[in-house]
Amino acid sequence: MKIIIVGAAGVIGRAVAHALGKHHTVLAAGRTSGDYRVDLTDDASVTALFRETGPVDAIVSAAGNMHFGPLSQMSAAQFDIGLQDKLLGQVRLALIGQHHLNEGGSITLTAGSVSEDPIAQGANATTVNAALEGFVLAAATELRGNRRINVISPGLLTESWETYGAFFPGHETVPASRVALAYQRSVEGVQTGRVYRVV
Amino acid sequence: MKIIIVGAAGVIGRAVAHALGKHHTVLAAGRTSGDYRVDLTDDASVTALFRETGPVDAIVSAAGNMHFGPLSQMSAAQFDIGLQDKLLGQVRLALIGQHHLNEGGSITLTAGSVSEDPIAQGANATTVNAALEGFVLAAATELRGNRRINVISPGLLTESWETYGAFFPGHETVPASRVALAYQRSVEGVQTGRVYRVV
Repeated sequence: MKIIIVGAAGVIGRAVAHALGKHHTVLAAGRTSGDYRVDLTDDASVTALFRETGPVDAIVSAAGNMHFGPLSQMSAAQFDIGLQDKLLGQVRLALIGQHHLNEGGSITLTAGSVSEDPIAQGANATTVNAALEGFVLAAATELRGNRRINVISPGLLTESWETYGAFFPGHETVPASRVALAYQRSVEGVQTGRVYRVV
Repeated sequence: MKIIIVGAAGVIGRAVAHALGKHHTVLAAGRTSGDYRVDLTDDASVTALFRETGPVDAIVSAAGNMHFGPLSQMSAAQFDIGLQDKLLGQVRLALIGQHHLNEGGSITLTAGSVSEDPIAQGANATTVNAALEGFVLAAATELRGNRRINVISPGLLTESWETYGAFFPGHETVPASRVALAYQRSVEGVQTGRVYRVV
């Protein structure tokens, strides 16, 4: 399979590229690094990406920023950061990408377990991740030609514990290599409209 | 209680105003009608609303637009309609409203059962409604002073069957008067972070 991974330089992206690269052709894309540069907040950039890659068999996204901060100080503009970046960015990749996806191909997005397990200062994150889980549920009903779409909702990565652990008291972490299995399951499997929770 | 209802002229808003108006002081607000005019997509307009009303005991929203259309033709800009209007509009009302809400007061937003029950052409609606359900889950953990926040997720209203029924084959409808009970439960009850599904 020819697989594009957006956010390939991140902790998850690297693990997914490593896992899928064993048996597939992986095209690494990212905002500031990778063989292909793409800004998911920009229609033209996403369209240009697929013009460069040509049709693909799988689209994987592990990209997107959100806003973290206390609810009592949060503005709508700050809240919109996550809506425009991690949420609409990945939705844009799916909306444009569906037209460059071979029959039987798949789209795999990334949410996060805070979708149903809120953390301090994480109102934007819970909202964005819950939204992504909703999106694949609906989008899966409309894709044709056996095309599929799923989302991975990982818990805190073991690799990110040192940086973000204070926000996840008592949480078990998951190594990126385990999270990567869920992406493999989505890409190589047969299911659609699924939320794969890896916690 | 002094209760502000945004979207008071809609089918749900009217039913909620009728139910809550029996025992409370209801302030009716809306984009184009009502005693108070407010545009939920505009920070200044929402701030002005609360400057006019003064502190309230409950904030109820039954307002917001989304985009409906086939996924295969959907653009990111169209998808953003629901994110900016029904999602961020109601989130903005909550973010600003929390500072004008009396201790023990509540915020009640409106999502919809398509959050977990997708319909044709409804990818934006499922996403927006799932996002709102996530938002209250997280926001409830951060509100202080016994302030609460919940969301109502109604199925297709009986009153809307003629207009939208074709998109809800085999669905049972719910009369707005039944949906209004969930708002009463949220406003007069003790729970927080709840999704009240009325289907």
